[in-house]
Amino acid sequence: MSDQTKSPALEAETTSRIAPSFDKGLVHTIAAESAMSFIDGERGVLEYVGISIDELARGSTFEECVFLLWNKRLPTASELEIFQERIRDEYDLPDPMWEMIRHIPKYATPMSALRTLGSALGMFDPEADFSSPEHAERKAIHLLARAPAIVAGFDRHRKGLPFLRPDPRMSIVRSFLYMLKGEKPGKLTSHALDVVFILHAEHGLNASTFASMVTISTLSDMYSALATAIGTLKGPLHGGANMGVLKMLQDIGSIDRVEPYILDKLQRKEKVMGFGHRVYKAHDPRATYLREFAHDLAEETGNMDLYELTVKIEEVMEREVGHRGIHPNVDFYSAITFISLGIEVDFFTPIFAMSRIAGWAGHCIEQLSDNKLMRPRARYTGPHNVPYVPLDQR
Amino acid sequence: MSDQTKSPALEAETTSRIAPSFDKGLVHTIAAESAMSFIDGERGVLEYVGISIDELARGSTFEECVFLLWNKRLPTASELEIFQERIRDEYDLPDPMWEMIRHIPKYATPMSALRTLGSALGMFDPEADFSSPEHAERKAIHLLARAPAIVAGFDRHRKGLPFLRPDPRMSIVRSFLYMLKGEKPGKLTSHALDVVFILHAEHGLNASTFASMVTISTLSDMYSALATAIGTLKGPLHGGANMGVLKMLQDIGSIDRVEPYILDKLQRKEKVMGFGHRVYKAHDPRATYLREFAHDLAEETGNMDLYELTVKIEEVMEREVGHRGIHPNVDFYSAITFISLGIEVDFFTPIFAMSRIAGWAGHCIEQLSDNKLMRPRARYTGPHNVPYVPLDQR
Repeated sequence: MSDQTKSPALEAETTSRIAPSFDKGLVHTIAAESAMSFIDGERGVLEYVGISIDELARGSTFEECVFLLWNKRLPTASELEIFQERIRDEYDLPDPMWEMIRHIPKYATPMSALRTLGSALGMFDPEADFSSPEHAERKAIHLLARAPAIVAGFDRHRKGLPFLRPDPRMSIVRSFLYMLKGEKPGKLTSHALDVVFILHAEHGLNASTFASMVTISTLSDMYSALATAIGTLKGPLHGGANMGVLKMLQDIGSIDRVEPYILDKLQRKEKVMGFGHRVYKAHDPRATYLREFAHDLAEETGNMDLYELTVKIEEVMEREVGHRGIHPNVDFYSAITFISLGIEVDFFTPIFAMSRIAGWAGHCIEQLSDNKLMRPRARYTGPHNVPYVPLDQR
Repeated sequence: MSDQTKSPALEAETTSRIAPSFDKGLVHTIAAESAMSFIDGERGVLEYVGISIDELARGSTFEECVFLLWNKRLPTASELEIFQERIRDEYDLPDPMWEMIRHIPKYATPMSALRTLGSALGMFDPEADFSSPEHAERKAIHLLARAPAIVAGFDRHRKGLPFLRPDPRMSIVRSFLYMLKGEKPGKLTSHALDVVFILHAEHGLNASTFASMVTISTLSDMYSALATAIGTLKGPLHGGANMGVLKMLQDIGSIDRVEPYILDKLQRKEKVMGFGHRVYKAHDPRATYLREFAHDLAEETGNMDLYELTVKIEEVMEREVGHRGIHPNVDFYSAITFISLGIEVDFFTPIFAMSRIAGWAGHCIEQLSDNKLMRPRARYTGPHNVPYVPLDQR
């Protein structure tokens, strides 16, 4: 019941005399090795296992990218078939979990529902605590497959609609849209969301991924690690950026208000949501294909007004700050895609979460393959040698 | 929907050119400052806000220690009264949560139930996402107060017993024992468990505490942070050490088998559970008072056989390895205490969790008061410039 560990490696390092260094945000610390994604912000490059994100967005599927990230290579046709079947076999929730959803208050946020029900999946898995890499992958598939039923199920519950069970003949994204909307989605619609899933599947050691790795480093189970990741992504400094884009579009309202709105923002030196990126200085490689795609999607979904508004925003921004390397990022086009698909704003982050399960689980499996407990230090700033004064003498 | 952040401080540091260093277990990294606990393993010192843990164990109560850790000073009598009332007012669960417990499979582990229902508390709090320090403390009280009802409630559910509601006239520990056992606990019994709670309330940046701080650093909510911590503590490298003590006692079985069992272990250079500590080299300051207390507790609870067994184990260990600085640690006496109290082995870690909510929440409140997103780096070890080969050409 202490924080004791049995690792001889840790023992050796802890008693060594290397002076620890203070790095509050861990910005200067490399905490792990990974063979999943490579980011070069200066050149605008994101690769999954060496393959450019733009090529994957154009040619691959979400399921294939998950296989790529977890196995470090593309699958053959028959491998992909088997992998997809394994996922589809796991789509549905156990009946008591559908019952649990009925007890969730309708005012709960979808992210807290996903965190709770994702955690609950672990209670229904009699093998939850087995922690071999094979078991970890099996549980990752379990979570990846069932998250859409949780998210769509909670939405139907809060709207007072009957649950729809997932359809095992459909891809993850198609089955999700079907449960959410109650009708089979069009091809372009489900392709658009599949592309968003591909683009958000993995992005290095962000806070949610890192937190899940700290959890798994105690040899805890995958359900714990994923609940950690979902709860961490939930924070407004992490998962909520694309909600800001929607708010901006609502604030602008109509195409004639674009120019004054943007110029005013720039003059006040305020951030224009969906433009520029902390990491990507040239352009955000995740934005390219979604941008090309936006016109056709808007046409199919009857959102040409929205499309023209976004084109206008881009035009003004390009003219004003394009020369400073500020271009639309993945949040901008993801938000546009969600609005075109009629997805509500508080579902933006849950969708991010459903796709990022690929990256979270992948990093946890990597961590388990060469594990070391993560235990940094704190610098103590309080007093010493304070006597305990009994209550009646205070 | 990217991992983008709006923090200008982070922006500045990320683009600076300080070479990051590789520290896989973060052993050489100071990740935060804290004024809660001070550990000096060489001298065998643990202080909460400067007060020695042994003095607190002898004179304080768990509730008072929580106030101390969160407010960095001992309360006055009236402050303690108010603090206790705030906690007691929050003991009971909302009715739909009792319903949710009924849907949990009886084979689920208590830790996965606590992680899930702790997370669920966030769905029932309409102010879950408010993140001011005041709100954070209110939610911490909420979790601290309700965790015992979750843990005891799940135990009664799995045993097919009717739920018992918490008793707001009792302390946290007394009310927990009452719900668990169905009768009012004796004074010595509840004092023993209260001491265990005090001893485990806080212990620096262990993995569960650190993981919860990563979660809160995205400005996520306290329920997310606590679900993270519970899921992280669950791992066998972290929260499970005292279960090993029980297993050893069962393996030994009777007092005449102590000597051969221990000598055999030592000869094989195997670890004797409950002895020695990664951090504490002299003695574990958390063990002292529980040790003194063990005789009286065993007598009150009719466990003198067990007491004599533990005394014998200590005798043999002291004779054989005492000169090497290997002494009984807090796990040894916590396990003995739990067994005396008739607490089942899979409840050892949940009890650890219930008490450590004090430390977890305290560190999260400290993090919120001077927040910086925690985002370390990964070293990429995979390939580059791999072409995407379409499926039909693989």
